[in-house]
Amino acid sequence: MTDDSLEARLRPIGVISSVLKTRREAPRQGDEGAPDAWLDIHPWAAEGLHGLAAGDQVIVITWLHQARREVLQVHPRGDTRRRIAGVFATRSPDRPNPLGLHPVVVRSIEGNRLCVGPIEAIDGTPVVDIKSGC
Amino acid sequence: MTDDSLEARLRPIGVISSVLKTRREAPRQGDEGAPDAWLDIHPWAAEGLHGLAAGDQVIVITWLHQARREVLQVHPRGDTRRRIAGVFATRSPDRPNPLGLHPVVVRSIEGNRLCVGPIEAIDGTPVVDIKSGC
Repeated sequence: MTDDSLEARLRPIGVISSVLKTRREAPRQGDEGAPDAWLDIHPWAAEGLHGLAAGDQVIVITWLHQARREVLQVHPRGDTRRRIAGVFATRSPDRPNPLGLHPVVVRSIEGNRLCVGPIEAIDGTPVVDIKSGC
Repeated sequence: MTDDSLEARLRPIGVISSVLKTRREAPRQGDEGAPDAWLDIHPWAAEGLHGLAAGDQVIVITWLHQARREVLQVHPRGDTRRRIAGVFATRSPDRPNPLGLHPVVVRSIEGNRLCVGPIEAIDGTPVVDIKSGC
């Protein structure tokens, strides 16, 4: 596994520009009142956007850079009345590899910038991938 | 972004054990005739499985360790008759951060091993996350 681990370093393809500035402000899921946001794609990755169009459904994958990677068990949705669960049985952002999955609609594209939504990721969150479909 | 990049190194939580041994053998998506496979979760991450049960729908995230990370444009599904598209408009495994998303059903759990499927990831593929739901 040593070789794989050495290579498993994410290179952000862009960054989220959002009105949500803190984790506290963010809804837990995109469909819980999240706003639209801009994905600013870095110039080196921009040719990977070819063929995307307004109206497309895509899955944006983010690196939840403020998450706590040492957490393995949580109260689901932070509700202490709910029984402790392993993070892999939840959608907690706190987990060993804090990847965010965001099914969104592409609202518009302006050069290297995509407006997408709804998306609960906060301002400054690194974007690591975009995939077609859901 | 420097600090984020330094931290954005994935730590595999486990590895896939599958009858599929090469990319050539693997269907392009799980619902195209893929087999079930075992996820061998590393002991340090096993407490994160608490609460998962047979029948659960989860999303397994893998690191597609044989993918080509320098690729930004492809013929969709490798079909040269199809027009070139940016990888972010496709599900190509070749992309800057080759993360595989696999919606699967948990068939059974035996200690640190989960049988899940159908899943097109090949034997030896590192598992980096498991999330509830779809």
